[in-house]
Amino acid sequence: MPVLLAADQAPTLPELLQAANTTGLDSTIVDTNEPMPRIGGLGSLLSAGPLEISFLSNSKLQGQLAQCRAAAVVMTRQAYEALPGPPPYRVVLCSQPYLLYALLAQWFDRHRLAQIEPGVHPSAVVASSARIGEGASIGPHCVIEDGASIGAGTRLGPGCVIGAGSSVGRDGLLHARVTLYHGVHVGDRAILHSGAVLGADGFGFAPHPGSEQGAWAKIAQLGGVQVGDDVEIGANTTVDRGALENTVIGDGVKLDNQIMIAHNVRIGAHTAMAACVGVAGSTTIGSRCTIGGASMISGHLVLGDDVHVSGGTAITASIDKPGRYTGVYPFDEHAGWQRNAAVLSQLAQLRRRLRALERPGS
Amino acid sequence: MPVLLAADQAPTLPELLQAANTTGLDSTIVDTNEPMPRIGGLGSLLSAGPLEISFLSNSKLQGQLAQCRAAAVVMTRQAYEALPGPPPYRVVLCSQPYLLYALLAQWFDRHRLAQIEPGVHPSAVVASSARIGEGASIGPHCVIEDGASIGAGTRLGPGCVIGAGSSVGRDGLLHARVTLYHGVHVGDRAILHSGAVLGADGFGFAPHPGSEQGAWAKIAQLGGVQVGDDVEIGANTTVDRGALENTVIGDGVKLDNQIMIAHNVRIGAHTAMAACVGVAGSTTIGSRCTIGGASMISGHLVLGDDVHVSGGTAITASIDKPGRYTGVYPFDEHAGWQRNAAVLSQLAQLRRRLRALERPGS
Amino acid sequence: MPVLLAADQAPTLPELLQAANTTGLDSTIVDTNEPMPRIGGLGSLLSAGPLEISFLSNSKLQGQLAQCRAAAVVMTRQAYEALPGPPPYRVVLCSQPYLLYALLAQWFDRHRLAQIEPGVHPSAVVASSARIGEGASIGPHCVIEDGASIGAGTRLGPGCVIGAGSSVGRDGLLHARVTLYHGVHVGDRAILHSGAVLGADGFGFAPHPGSEQGAWAKIAQLGGVQVGDDVEIGANTTVDRGALENTVIGDGVKLDNQIMIAHNVRIGAHTAMAACVGVAGSTTIGSRCTIGGASMISGHLVLGDDVHVSGGTAITASIDKPGRYTGVYPFDEHAGWQRNAAVLSQLAQLRRRLRALERPGS
Repeated sequence: MPVLLAADQAPTLPELLQAANTTGLDSTIVDTNEPMPRIGGLGSLLSAGPLEISFLSNSKLQGQLAQCRAAAVVMTRQAYEALPGPPPYRVVLCSQPYLLYALLAQWFDRHRLAQIEPGVHPSAVVASSARIGEGASIGPHCVIEDGASIGAGTRLGPGCVIGAGSSVGRDGLLHARVTLYHGVHVGDRAILHSGAVLGADGFGFAPHPGSEQGAWAKIAQLGGVQVGDDVEIGANTTVDRGALENTVIGDGVKLDNQIMIAHNVRIGAHTAMAACVGVAGSTTIGSRCTIGGASMISGHLVLGDDVHVSGGTAITASIDKPGRYTGVYPFDEHAGWQRNAAVLSQLAQLRRRLRALERPGS
Repeated sequence: MPVLLAADQAPTLPELLQAANTTGLDSTIVDTNEPMPRIGGLGSLLSAGPLEISFLSNSKLQGQLAQCRAAAVVMTRQAYEALPGPPPYRVVLCSQPYLLYALLAQWFDRHRLAQIEPGVHPSAVVASSARIGEGASIGPHCVIEDGASIGAGTRLGPGCVIGAGSSVGRDGLLHARVTLYHGVHVGDRAILHSGAVLGADGFGFAPHPGSEQGAWAKIAQLGGVQVGDDVEIGANTTVDRGALENTVIGDGVKLDNQIMIAHNVRIGAHTAMAACVGVAGSTTIGSRCTIGGASMISGHLVLGDDVHVSGGTAITASIDKPGRYTGVYPFDEHAGWQRNAAVLSQLAQLRRRLRALERPGS
Repeated sequence: MPVLLAADQAPTLPELLQAANTTGLDSTIVDTNEPMPRIGGLGSLLSAGPLEISFLSNSKLQGQLAQCRAAAVVMTRQAYEALPGPPPYRVVLCSQPYLLYALLAQWFDRHRLAQIEPGVHPSAVVASSARIGEGASIGPHCVIEDGASIGAGTRLGPGCVIGAGSSVGRDGLLHARVTLYHGVHVGDRAILHSGAVLGADGFGFAPHPGSEQGAWAKIAQLGGVQVGDDVEIGANTTVDRGALENTVIGDGVKLDNQIMIAHNVRIGAHTAMAACVGVAGSTTIGSRCTIGGASMISGHLVLGDDVHVSGGTAITASIDKPGRYTGVYPFDEHAGWQRNAAVLSQLAQLRRRLRALERPGS
């Protein structure tokens, strides 16, 4: 599982590879004299059935090949040569099986999406000044406000809201209930998931001493959000608009669900963040970084390129050196944690006592 | 407070107990010769008024009974026998007052929900191939896509989106703006809160070396989500679809708000998670676990049954032994924290110095 | 940037100050004999152009004044007197430049909002028993249920849902897709951002021993949510309804995005919370507190007034003394963290060994 196409609709293995391999990745079918199976879906080595293709991307799983019931398996030449004999499935040689798996999975998903018809659903509310590109699909109950623009081929699921003057580039996919405030610009081939909110106000307040004690005056947020090409943003993730200048998400950035990007943050190209990360205001993160889930990054910092933050880590200072950074309290059985945590508040004192013992004559 | 029904609409105490106690829990009214009050709502011991019922579930609160102005109070026989004399309220004896309170509160909430009329609101967009069960209620601006199915008696609040081929079982309650992507299956008696998103893509990418440095290729997520019976999922919680196989939420699981369940996670029956928890991909959690708020659980782990994680804990390794696990940095006044935290990065060195002092002859 | 109004629509500097300074803050234009520029937007000292006003609120940035190309700059008299000579821009003297900036930014944002027309969009579904105040604006696809009430001048963006009997005060702004369940009451001048959910059920369950092992009975949540005046609530933030009594958010409270406020929490006036904070059930937080991002606060605690919690801190006990509180694991390069974290689970033992060495005769 999952079989996605019935046998009579499924392409043959060579047809599938030709259609799916859009990037010119090397891929060679071994034993082309054998009959070519139809491929209706993709599965893992242990779950794929006779209408599916599988892949071996992790050499530790080589042992599972013996039990594999798939119609075809993608693997490296090295893995192929380690087989004890001719396997019952067709072999596709590829130097990067995991990447070919990605391309195959994309093909099956595109097949599903191809069923969405272009055009504007009659229940959608589209301002007369909005521009809808050719082949775009605007789902039921969407709202496209004044001067907004949707690129050619872009699909909006039900209930999306595109604020005044905002834009989405071409060939994008906005799932149900994505919200773009006004002044938000998203590049081409974006994938935005349900509940994502781009362009809500950044959190800015000035103390308002003339008013009640402790009262705040709102700093209206006049900047926007600028999102590059090939960006994916997960479900219920929020990217706030800038105070005066834009919040900027670079090309190829991938944000998982429930991430919070505060105002005036800048994220470099191809940086990926796992779920539940929070980045506070005005922080700049470089390119090709990875940020583990549930991490938090304080405001007004600069993280350079190729910085990798472990999940659950609080980054409270700038980092200019590439590498992996961590700060997680190790868990323990509760009683053990309690015993050791109690000593944490005495660490400075323990160090003093240790120094005293080390002093000559002590 | 809250009084939910006016006196002329409120049931008498025996009528209420009979209607609400749907599980055959023991409950006995003492002094049935006294006139039976009408009960229009539920309140705590100190706030309930003469049209309300209250309950004593925590023996520490026994002292509050002296001030209680409720019409009736649920308590154990033990608590009743400890009363100094006949109370001014009717007493309902029950071996589990907290559970009876739960059933009474459910009855009042059902009464409110009964006002929602069955049928499909004219503004909803329902595909002709979708199936809507008998007595179901589809609210304004809902979208039910091709082949989706809504079970008998299930109510959808305004703006829910049910993706193609997805299903919700019978007698469920989806509050406003719940989103199910395609291929998501939810069992009977589900309660899903506003902003919940089931079936967004899991976060999967393959390095794409042929493209720009650091670029990613999307792993299309072809699995679905499978949710058991009697599951409650909180507001703005997200449960991602699986990469190839399903993400699985077991029967009776309770998820609070703003929880993130990543792709291919499996959660066993009756496990409960408090708000803001994140569970990373492919982790399996057993049955009857409790996960405290703001905890995070790394990917590819296995947690057995009856594991209890304290709030704010990062679980970074599998756990096979039932018990309570904790890992939280203790808070302190800022200056104290600063002093002690500075020593944290010298712990390994401190241990070495201690060992040196312990060596014979030092 | 951002220039928000074209030159021919922009007010002159004196017109802008008079219109924007709604609170009687001191502000004096120096050299009123000079021609008065038109102001079409606001910018930082280094980015503002000749149609924009800027401000100096941080004395560390005084050096940027030499390069400033703005039409006018707000600064203190002290900063003005430190200028080396007459600047090329008009100077506005103000004792609180940051507060005046806030008021100017608010004016430009109001100008944008003024374009939203009052009235109920034809696609909105408004119950006949609902009350819509004068000048209110109800956007496309909103749903206003039975007995709900929207105050005069309040604007609802597309897709908002206001549950039965709930109310929003006057002059509020609900951005797209805000959800209020039934029985939620919000005061005047509220700003609620997209995806916010007020009034979802609190997370309450009673063990249900008569049922399957580990099963839970739902505690229906019969209380509501009460929100004061001048409150802002961020995108995808959730505030749960109370179990029996209300969850209460005080006047002037500011909540950033993705915050979770559990049932029966009470938050005092003018307290501000940064993003991703979680507050567990029945906790009371005082007035004028600030809670840093990604902090968590356990349930059933009491935090007094003027308590300041650093980002990423877990508060697990009540705090009655004003001050700053912190508890964050310091991050490090991964290898260094690993070395030191391994010692954390031996702290109690290390302390014992240190005591042994300190003992006389050891």
